[in-house]
Amino acid sequence: MPDIATTIAIKLIQRESVTPEDGGCQNYIESLLAPLGFVRTHVDTGGITNSIYTRTGELPGTLAFAGHTDVVPTGPVEQWQQPPFSAEIIDGILHGRGAQDMKGAIACWIAAIAELCGEYTPLPTLQLLITSDEEGDSIDGTIRIVEHMQAAATLPDAVIIGEPSCSNSVGDTIRRGRRGVVQVRATIHGKQGHSAYPQDADNAIHRAAPALARIAAIKWGEPSAGFPATSCQITNISGGTGASNVIPGHCDAFIDIRYNPGNSFDEIRAAIEAACADCECTLDFDHVATAFSTPDGPFLDLVCGSILRVTGTETLRDTGGGTSDGRFLAAAGIPVAELGTTNSSIHQVNEQVAVSELATLTAIYSDIIKHFEVLA
Amino acid sequence: MPDIATTIAIKLIQRESVTPEDGGCQNYIESLLAPLGFVRTHVDTGGITNSIYTRTGELPGTLAFAGHTDVVPTGPVEQWQQPPFSAEIIDGILHGRGAQDMKGAIACWIAAIAELCGEYTPLPTLQLLITSDEEGDSIDGTIRIVEHMQAAATLPDAVIIGEPSCSNSVGDTIRRGRRGVVQVRATIHGKQGHSAYPQDADNAIHRAAPALARIAAIKWGEPSAGFPATSCQITNISGGTGASNVIPGHCDAFIDIRYNPGNSFDEIRAAIEAACADCECTLDFDHVATAFSTPDGPFLDLVCGSILRVTGTETLRDTGGGTSDGRFLAAAGIPVAELGTTNSSIHQVNEQVAVSELATLTAIYSDIIKHFEVLA
Repeated sequence: MPDIATTIAIKLIQRESVTPEDGGCQNYIESLLAPLGFVRTHVDTGGITNSIYTRTGELPGTLAFAGHTDVVPTGPVEQWQQPPFSAEIIDGILHGRGAQDMKGAIACWIAAIAELCGEYTPLPTLQLLITSDEEGDSIDGTIRIVEHMQAAATLPDAVIIGEPSCSNSVGDTIRRGRRGVVQVRATIHGKQGHSAYPQDADNAIHRAAPALARIAAIKWGEPSAGFPATSCQITNISGGTGASNVIPGHCDAFIDIRYNPGNSFDEIRAAIEAACADCECTLDFDHVATAFSTPDGPFLDLVCGSILRVTGTETLRDTGGGTSDGRFLAAAGIPVAELGTTNSSIHQVNEQVAVSELATLTAIYSDIIKHFEVLA
Repeated sequence: MPDIATTIAIKLIQRESVTPEDGGCQNYIESLLAPLGFVRTHVDTGGITNSIYTRTGELPGTLAFAGHTDVVPTGPVEQWQQPPFSAEIIDGILHGRGAQDMKGAIACWIAAIAELCGEYTPLPTLQLLITSDEEGDSIDGTIRIVEHMQAAATLPDAVIIGEPSCSNSVGDTIRRGRRGVVQVRATIHGKQGHSAYPQDADNAIHRAAPALARIAAIKWGEPSAGFPATSCQITNISGGTGASNVIPGHCDAFIDIRYNPGNSFDEIRAAIEAACADCECTLDFDHVATAFSTPDGPFLDLVCGSILRVTGTETLRDTGGGTSDGRFLAAAGIPVAELGTTNSSIHQVNEQVAVSELATLTAIYSDIIKHFEVLA
């Protein structure tokens, strides 16, 4: 007989919710939370299912859990050893799309609350901020929830995000921030012509090469504490007609920049523009994600303290990986800690999680909720 | 009633001979030359029609005319105002593929010979070296004729090539040399990876950019007299998978170099290799054409003198344009002058030549042949 967290995880995985579909997950979540005193607020936007579930607490302070019910596509179904939405448990392993990312963590948080409520433990005000638009465009998801809470003055004091943060065992790693992302489409202009008559042409590749060399050589400074260095990668380049003897009139490049909070978007844009200053070019900047970092302090200490109590593990306060919805909450000034299961199989075929992980994560979440009052 | 040169040009244009086809042109040429005392030697190789037509002269010395019967494809036939192989004359203009490049010039040379033979003018030994593989690969064409003549010890003392050398009027320009061509396929190697984890990858575009910037900045020195400067053009570049976040493992570039005799292939290769010395790369060099230059001297003076006598024009001794079969003859140590019609419509739709040009060119060719004895 599976425990409560595993049972909830099974029910969530069995609801097919490939992004941006919710697949009925949130109605199921509401059916679990309503008896515990939670009120659901719909913040649906652009076809996305967004909900805020709130239980007014007996203790001061507001602690939120943020997560997403949408999952990435299955990939080739025939490569799965178990059907991706069957949620079968074999030898203590729960198989299915979303097991790690992140239906398992949602299940653990609900299981922790259910247990605490059943014990009549006095609790802070609790919020669950659940979207179905994290794995897709992230345009109408958590950012809309944050906007709603800002307008309603219901922002929490801190937030746990259920992203699978851990490497080898539950609790070994939390993410306290993420690098930002800037992407640049650069077109360097010249004048097309015949390579036998270079005086009548202006080779765009010859213009581009030194500019791109300067971009590759930009020194981005020392990274902020705990962050990897800013990385600027020219990931694509193309120029020329394919003919051997035609001087190209333009050259296109794509630049992918992962920056730490020691840099800013404005600084990055200025550096790229300066590197291209001597050539005629069109630069199209997209600030995909803003860098954020939750400083050391009582909230991260609380989270790591709970992990230590439950598992005996010293936790790495990490900032690696790609983007997460944490950036929207951090931008509102809220301390953010991402803590979920391990992430060994996320976005792959045969996504799976150990049932024992769910039990451990539930215990950690429960400990965090119980001790949150010290921050209020 | 068209003159002899125009009549021959019409008959040649009407024989469709898109490269590498001869289309019966050379049998027609043989039918014209045999009665004048020419003997045809077949040097056919690889499906190409190559012929040496020789008339032993009354005077010392051997003067050759080199040309090709093949023409470039018509392009979109519906864009031609006259059918490309109809060879119609409208308002003094002969229309058709090959009118300038170079059936017109072949016709003029034959007309000049026919006239001189009819007058019983004593002549040097005359050769016509005609291929059907100039507009294509140029692998089995004039180079095979030269090899044959080297083996038979029948190389001429000088050669006129009927390429359309002139800009605005017949005789304004001869080509006394051409730049050489080197083409390089460069692959710069790195290590593919994810742009969020640059420490595990080696960006091939970042390696390529400074190397290509150095190549673009190479100083090739002062050009040989009369030659345009060596031109090195990176005409194509591509790198990246198309994904925004994948660091590319290799970057490919194509480099097209037109060099003057002041540079050499070995020097060019060394310069490119030096520019790429600090990156792991594969460089594939193709020495497409060797540069050549016929120095000032009695042969060029003879050609320009004939032009001056016939047209009153001071001739530019040029070295521009792409490649020509002149390189194969020059490599055998033979003075080369390219002299043909104007080149305003070569390789385009609606190729055409003025009938009056053919008369002028015939007169110049005749004058050159008559005065060639001074060189012998």
